[in-house]
Amino acid sequence: MPLTKIVLEESELPSHWYNVIADLPNPPAPYLGPDGQPVTAEQMTQIFAPDLVEQEVSTQRWIEIPQEVREILRLWRPTPLFRAHRLEAALNTPAKIYYKYEGVSPAGSHKPNSAVAQAYYNKIAGIRRLTTETGAGQWGSALSLAGSMFGLEVRVYMVKISYEQKPFRRSMMETWGAEVLASPTTLTHSGRQILSQDPHNPGSLGIAISEAVEEAASRKDTNYTLGSVLNHVLLHQTVIGQEARQQLKKVGDYPDVIFAPCGGGSNVGGMMFPFLADKAAGQAIRLVAVEPTSCPTLTRGHYAYDHGDSAGLTPLMKMYTLGHDFMPPSIHAGGLRYHGDSALVSQLYHEGILEAQAVPQLATFKAGILFSKAEGIIPAPESNHAIQAVIAEAEHCRVTGESKTILFTLSGHGHFDMTAYDKYLSGQLTDQDYPEEALQAALHNLPKWVAK
Amino acid sequence: MPLTKIVLEESELPSHWYNVIADLPNPPAPYLGPDGQPVTAEQMTQIFAPDLVEQEVSTQRWIEIPQEVREILRLWRPTPLFRAHRLEAALNTPAKIYYKYEGVSPAGSHKPNSAVAQAYYNKIAGIRRLTTETGAGQWGSALSLAGSMFGLEVRVYMVKISYEQKPFRRSMMETWGAEVLASPTTLTHSGRQILSQDPHNPGSLGIAISEAVEEAASRKDTNYTLGSVLNHVLLHQTVIGQEARQQLKKVGDYPDVIFAPCGGGSNVGGMMFPFLADKAAGQAIRLVAVEPTSCPTLTRGHYAYDHGDSAGLTPLMKMYTLGHDFMPPSIHAGGLRYHGDSALVSQLYHEGILEAQAVPQLATFKAGILFSKAEGIIPAPESNHAIQAVIAEAEHCRVTGESKTILFTLSGHGHFDMTAYDKYLSGQLTDQDYPEEALQAALHNLPKWVAK
Repeated sequence: MPLTKIVLEESELPSHWYNVIADLPNPPAPYLGPDGQPVTAEQMTQIFAPDLVEQEVSTQRWIEIPQEVREILRLWRPTPLFRAHRLEAALNTPAKIYYKYEGVSPAGSHKPNSAVAQAYYNKIAGIRRLTTETGAGQWGSALSLAGSMFGLEVRVYMVKISYEQKPFRRSMMETWGAEVLASPTTLTHSGRQILSQDPHNPGSLGIAISEAVEEAASRKDTNYTLGSVLNHVLLHQTVIGQEARQQLKKVGDYPDVIFAPCGGGSNVGGMMFPFLADKAAGQAIRLVAVEPTSCPTLTRGHYAYDHGDSAGLTPLMKMYTLGHDFMPPSIHAGGLRYHGDSALVSQLYHEGILEAQAVPQLATFKAGILFSKAEGIIPAPESNHAIQAVIAEAEHCRVTGESKTILFTLSGHGHFDMTAYDKYLSGQLTDQDYPEEALQAALHNLPKWVAK
Repeated sequence: MPLTKIVLEESELPSHWYNVIADLPNPPAPYLGPDGQPVTAEQMTQIFAPDLVEQEVSTQRWIEIPQEVREILRLWRPTPLFRAHRLEAALNTPAKIYYKYEGVSPAGSHKPNSAVAQAYYNKIAGIRRLTTETGAGQWGSALSLAGSMFGLEVRVYMVKISYEQKPFRRSMMETWGAEVLASPTTLTHSGRQILSQDPHNPGSLGIAISEAVEEAASRKDTNYTLGSVLNHVLLHQTVIGQEARQQLKKVGDYPDVIFAPCGGGSNVGGMMFPFLADKAAGQAIRLVAVEPTSCPTLTRGHYAYDHGDSAGLTPLMKMYTLGHDFMPPSIHAGGLRYHGDSALVSQLYHEGILEAQAVPQLATFKAGILFSKAEGIIPAPESNHAIQAVIAEAEHCRVTGESKTILFTLSGHGHFDMTAYDKYLSGQLTDQDYPEEALQAALHNLPKWVAK
């Protein structure tokens, strides 16, 4: 029987990150400031480490992973690639299904791949403290872990409603020594302004970003970090795709189609970018980002310049967006509730190089439970989006008789998301449709002065 | 720099379980029935699968692991062996510290190693349903996972107070398709009797065992399963020690001392038994079981025949015991709150082959947090007991300058135990001393008619 787990030795951990910007058919559109002019490196270094700003705009194809970063990554990397024999059997499909499992990191998702790099570059830049925001808690956990590894203080602005509903994510961050605050707080101008209008405001990712950015901008010893969307974050995640490519090679296989869940784009970039050069060279391979129908950024959003946060404090990025003031319905895949998307993923989708699919919430949980019973691992709700698309593809193969090779990213485990499974199992979940009027409103609210 | 993770290929998964009974200096004392006579295989097969009953008394040194069991185990096995470089650095110790990480199983602990085997043997015996009890939830999760893999119905009697306090463990079992009931229930005679006296009884492991055994004894299609204590459970866990031995060999190392947490003994047996032959052959190696001071079965209990459950329904086993009616203080390492211990572990301890140490609760959490910050992984409270002992040993090496090789079992992750970490971090935990009068009472309450 073919292998179940394809493992790599520690020495096979990638030595470089792959920078897709070097191979894009067209150069990426610059980020723009409030004056409509491209944002300068100097402006960005006010809240980001210089090396990260350099990576954000680098056109160098391969960027070496510092030894200090590799020594942390190897605590869980290379991650295993699994052949889903039991899922294939359960689906009675001729397709071969592989999944790259990122839930083996101590924080339980792929997020530490970038958190460790960001903490490192901030450490060597003389930064003592990091701020960030977290919604579902995966990024906050990853940065807390990375901070503890490099001896940096970490302050996490956690959306108040998540802070109250997910106390275990908070405890996890505190175990690694981070400080976790329920946002909005009274510590920042942004927070106080919200609270003066609405003392019981439950918080939002947009508000939490504003607080974390404001604090970082106001202190010389403190920088801000982001867990997705930006080019350097996607860069750091390319260890995923590089390893998967190498692992498939070991068993003499190559994917016909790759699926990854898509929120801000760090999963999609991390898994798919290392396969793009093959595609450009004529390799037949489909690359499919999977997003929720309740927050269908790629499949139904506008491709335009928009802000990355709700409050409009960040630079404008050319990306698919549902409008920066769009509040996605409350679904349990918190990591996918983002109005925008990585500019790189957006551009590649716009140019027809990546595909996208949107799937409804109930179908994703049904898929996740089928997966759990076959393969054992209980996936994060975000990962269930990819799984749903994989199952549909594998079932299509059963009909057509095609023995396709399907690869997907199992981005994390669901140990901190059992409330969601509980609600699904007890019939309390519903699909949350994306309201058509929201799409129109978003179009209306996009910054007027930027070129569409 | 030496390796961090020592991984084995799937083909290096052990092909056999190691049966320590074949190498014991003295034969094990038989289990006794209520009549004082050795329990017969026929009596045991009323609630256990015939192959498991055979394994319980087998004197064959190596027992082949069925192919069907190996095909499930390889979903997460071989598990990684880690060299704790960062913990060593944090402790500034010349000692080399290795840990075998069993938290990579889908249920998050070593428990599925036996659950899968037990489900398999019941399946081939024509059994359709399994019952069991669970306290902390780790064994219940493991059996639910195994049941879903072999298409068996699983009913878990979960101690009511855990059912209410740990809803996520319950959701996990339900995700794998198991039925979870808050014990005491009205479904069994034992449950109804308790509830008639006390309608708000919070339940106990003893009551839950009685309910699960009673149901299995009353139905031909249903068997009972146990997650520790019994010989066949420890047998199934010997994959841990066999792999660890092989992994250390790959890096040219061998342990001077091994630590494992000890509740019913499945961790101790699983890790240490495969090293016993070396010890018998003259190898200098210390084997140390670590238990809570609040439930100090080996270090302060009596070596005598006693019941395995609180209600006195099970056969009598010769073991270290605090008395079958002893209710251990409420500590957060639920898996270590057991009044007795495996007969095999007890015998080896009695004969001076294994050592034992008891550690207090607060020290274990302090050790666990130090470990989390150094190595990333947040351990289960049970595992923190071994970690505390390892840290003390490594600190001793710092004083003496000895570069000992220390190995321990990191039996599981703490993702479902964050309440305990939260309480520790907020200063709400205390040490729970084992009351001296309880020891006297236990001695008094031991069955009178059995030979001491």
